[in-house]
Amino acid sequence: MSLEREGLLSSEKPHPLDEIFHPKSIAVVGASTTEQGGRWLGALLTFGYAGHLYPVNLRATEISGLKAYPTVRDIPGPVDYAIFNIPARLTPQIMEDCVAKGVKVVHIYTAGFSETGKQEAKKLEAQTAAIARDGGVRVIGPNCTGIYYPAGGLTFSPTFSKEPGNLSFVSQTGAGASRFVTLANDRGIHFSKVISYGNAIDLDSSDFLEYLAGDEETEIIACYTEGVKDGRRFLEAIKKCLMTKPVIILKAGLTEGGARAAASHTASLAGSASVWDAFFKQTGAIPVDTLEEIIDVILALLRMPCPKGRRVGLMGRGGGLGVIAADTCERAGLKVPPFLPETVRQLEEVVPEAGSGIRNPVEGPQGMGEAAADFYARGLKIVDADPQIDFIVARLAVDVYGRRQPGLKEQLVKTAEVIANTTKTLTKPVAVVLYAGEHLETIVAVLEAQQKLLKAGIPVYPTIEAAARTVSKLIGYHEFAEKDEPTG
Amino acid sequence: MSLEREGLLSSEKPHPLDEIFHPKSIAVVGASTTEQGGRWLGALLTFGYAGHLYPVNLRATEISGLKAYPTVRDIPGPVDYAIFNIPARLTPQIMEDCVAKGVKVVHIYTAGFSETGKQEAKKLEAQTAAIARDGGVRVIGPNCTGIYYPAGGLTFSPTFSKEPGNLSFVSQTGAGASRFVTLANDRGIHFSKVISYGNAIDLDSSDFLEYLAGDEETEIIACYTEGVKDGRRFLEAIKKCLMTKPVIILKAGLTEGGARAAASHTASLAGSASVWDAFFKQTGAIPVDTLEEIIDVILALLRMPCPKGRRVGLMGRGGGLGVIAADTCERAGLKVPPFLPETVRQLEEVVPEAGSGIRNPVEGPQGMGEAAADFYARGLKIVDADPQIDFIVARLAVDVYGRRQPGLKEQLVKTAEVIANTTKTLTKPVAVVLYAGEHLETIVAVLEAQQKLLKAGIPVYPTIEAAARTVSKLIGYHEFAEKDEPTG
Repeated sequence: MSLEREGLLSSEKPHPLDEIFHPKSIAVVGASTTEQGGRWLGALLTFGYAGHLYPVNLRATEISGLKAYPTVRDIPGPVDYAIFNIPARLTPQIMEDCVAKGVKVVHIYTAGFSETGKQEAKKLEAQTAAIARDGGVRVIGPNCTGIYYPAGGLTFSPTFSKEPGNLSFVSQTGAGASRFVTLANDRGIHFSKVISYGNAIDLDSSDFLEYLAGDEETEIIACYTEGVKDGRRFLEAIKKCLMTKPVIILKAGLTEGGARAAASHTASLAGSASVWDAFFKQTGAIPVDTLEEIIDVILALLRMPCPKGRRVGLMGRGGGLGVIAADTCERAGLKVPPFLPETVRQLEEVVPEAGSGIRNPVEGPQGMGEAAADFYARGLKIVDADPQIDFIVARLAVDVYGRRQPGLKEQLVKTAEVIANTTKTLTKPVAVVLYAGEHLETIVAVLEAQQKLLKAGIPVYPTIEAAARTVSKLIGYHEFAEKDEPTG
Repeated sequence: MSLEREGLLSSEKPHPLDEIFHPKSIAVVGASTTEQGGRWLGALLTFGYAGHLYPVNLRATEISGLKAYPTVRDIPGPVDYAIFNIPARLTPQIMEDCVAKGVKVVHIYTAGFSETGKQEAKKLEAQTAAIARDGGVRVIGPNCTGIYYPAGGLTFSPTFSKEPGNLSFVSQTGAGASRFVTLANDRGIHFSKVISYGNAIDLDSSDFLEYLAGDEETEIIACYTEGVKDGRRFLEAIKKCLMTKPVIILKAGLTEGGARAAASHTASLAGSASVWDAFFKQTGAIPVDTLEEIIDVILALLRMPCPKGRRVGLMGRGGGLGVIAADTCERAGLKVPPFLPETVRQLEEVVPEAGSGIRNPVEGPQGMGEAAADFYARGLKIVDADPQIDFIVARLAVDVYGRRQPGLKEQLVKTAEVIANTTKTLTKPVAVVLYAGEHLETIVAVLEAQQKLLKAGIPVYPTIEAAARTVSKLIGYHEFAEKDEPTG
């Protein structure tokens, strides 16, 4: 990845925002050895940030083994980047220090500005913004967690994955970004860059999106926004991104109560639902409602070749559960067509019991053991060969059929391996639904099987609702992209 | 409960279906010592069914310590109830045996009838139905799992809870019923009666619903149906139930693919979505889309006094997560109004950090420890006192803020206890959202905290989507019931 980066840097002029992700030195203003203050320094040390690291603290001379300085001005070498973890009222003064020192970028973690709705706080924010603007300092925040860039050793949490990936997330929420990274890491998703930008008194989502549009380390972009200052610019930035990579957007604050909450959170004006509806129709960006849904969509984008159409073959035990699954798929904009007679004939040979559905959905055996593995080994190939079907969803109700099965974990993992290996031989994409329920041993087994499947490149979802909604959005994205391509 | 029942029996003539749930003797036809055949006998023995139990098997003389008989006719005493676990082709002949023996009710577990779509199987089903009808035998099924009635020692799975409850479930799906009971048991919900009735060649959902309408052991009714033979009668049965208890209905097969799957599952004609929409509007029955959603609604019905209105106070850490929660609530038909200034003033004293949202949603501290417990102990009371608010949803993002916290389980359980104890002193209902994520220790902690809260009578949901959707339906049900009551 660093070679790619060097290649990029050698062939093109670096983007003005490039220095945000590649600071040669960082000052942590308000560093301390106590829990909250130690967060920033501790996280950077844990991540092995390789540049110069300067704790700034009026009273300390050394923090975490590093020499501390009373102010930014006292730091001997140049400072590219400063993190403010200080009371809000001190912000203008320390911003002036940064101007004097020639700091290029300041990340203001501190909250308590315009989002409080209070006049004096708004004034403080405006004053800070003016000092930075006049002094040529770029600002991330205030009221945000800043940058997570594992390839560069930058992070706002020591617990995030250190492994770089190709997903970038532009987020107006800090806590939400932490939640998102954590949940995504758990599902095997790794990050290029995460930017939590809060109140956006200088750098806004559009700045970061424009940068990521040309970022070779970023192949998928996700964005959480509560409001944008310049709608036209945001639209153009998204369009630019979409020319080369998918963009998933969680637009928060589109309801009356949500808009009030957004104003209270980041002082954002949320905009109207109809404007945003039109935005999504016009751009082909993928709209989602929750952070979990972003992860679902990314799993599909990363691990599932786009199906050629919307026709799904459903496999899994349970007749009524199959009917519910079929309804769920069709409500999500997919189709559950009947299998061809030849497919039904062949499935009759692999379906274990009389009375099992075989016309789509097709029902497997009870349990998660050898019979299930055999059913998927043979059944997946038969359904794959049906020209009426574009992709397959295998639904494993481990919460019912695996529960209390002796040796469940080993058997479920074996079945997962069979599904993974068989899927490699198929011509059509496969997604798997693993129902875990609330029985601990079953959950343990499901988590292990899920890891197996994810590592084998198969997307796994906790419910048929999540799977159906996600694949439908994946197809919608590709449909838009194809429609949008110039012909002739 | 048995006293209530005796009271009922002494004051009223027993309902014709009463004998289904109170057989004095059961014959298991196709009983064997092997896994599948042993299911029925084994389950009844495990549950301590107190009546006479007769295994029927052509070749065995004793099964599980009970004397076995070659045919039903050979059983010495009277037989109230017979379970068929036999090949489909033998069904007419054994039904004739039951007629000769004077069996009152037959449950046909066997599948392979009209749901296969095959002519000979349809003929077999019609023949079986005719023999039963002419011989005066009532039939449950075929292609279904029959009865679970823990108070009477009846069950189709030995793993279900033996504790009786007040929920009854009328289900056209057997596997779905197993899944539903299992998931519900895990959330502390217990059952009066579950009936899985499959192809319904005799007794149909309407029969069971009519019975449950007058059943004193049933306080809430849930129903999974793929299709009904007599729509008018079903409507009347539901209306009769709704006069005294809530009814939740999962109508499956309302999409094109779902209808095909339903035909393949129970040979049902699914009906149109618009007709069913009108049905729900007319009756006030609570419509749901998944089995999980039935459980969500039951939790609210059982554990949450109905809020006086739709205005929710949201509590929980995370600014962006709060905006998403507010949007989710409003999209579900709830309102997230701003707190009164006096509420905001008081909340400022319990909110730990500058920059935390306090105007609804109100943000708590990081972590799940003492600070969180204190926030809920004081904050819940403040929000409860706000006349703008009808109920409270506390959102605990344990997956982010609790994760890797030392002693998480103990601390989270303590916080749950504080929420439970504080809720008892409030005037308004509270629901809790516990986000578990996919980190095993966090899941363990969440499951334990969930049990604490459920036992304290507080409904717990895994997501804000589930909580918002459910409370909205709870309120909708009560709104309908009040509107429907005669005035003056």
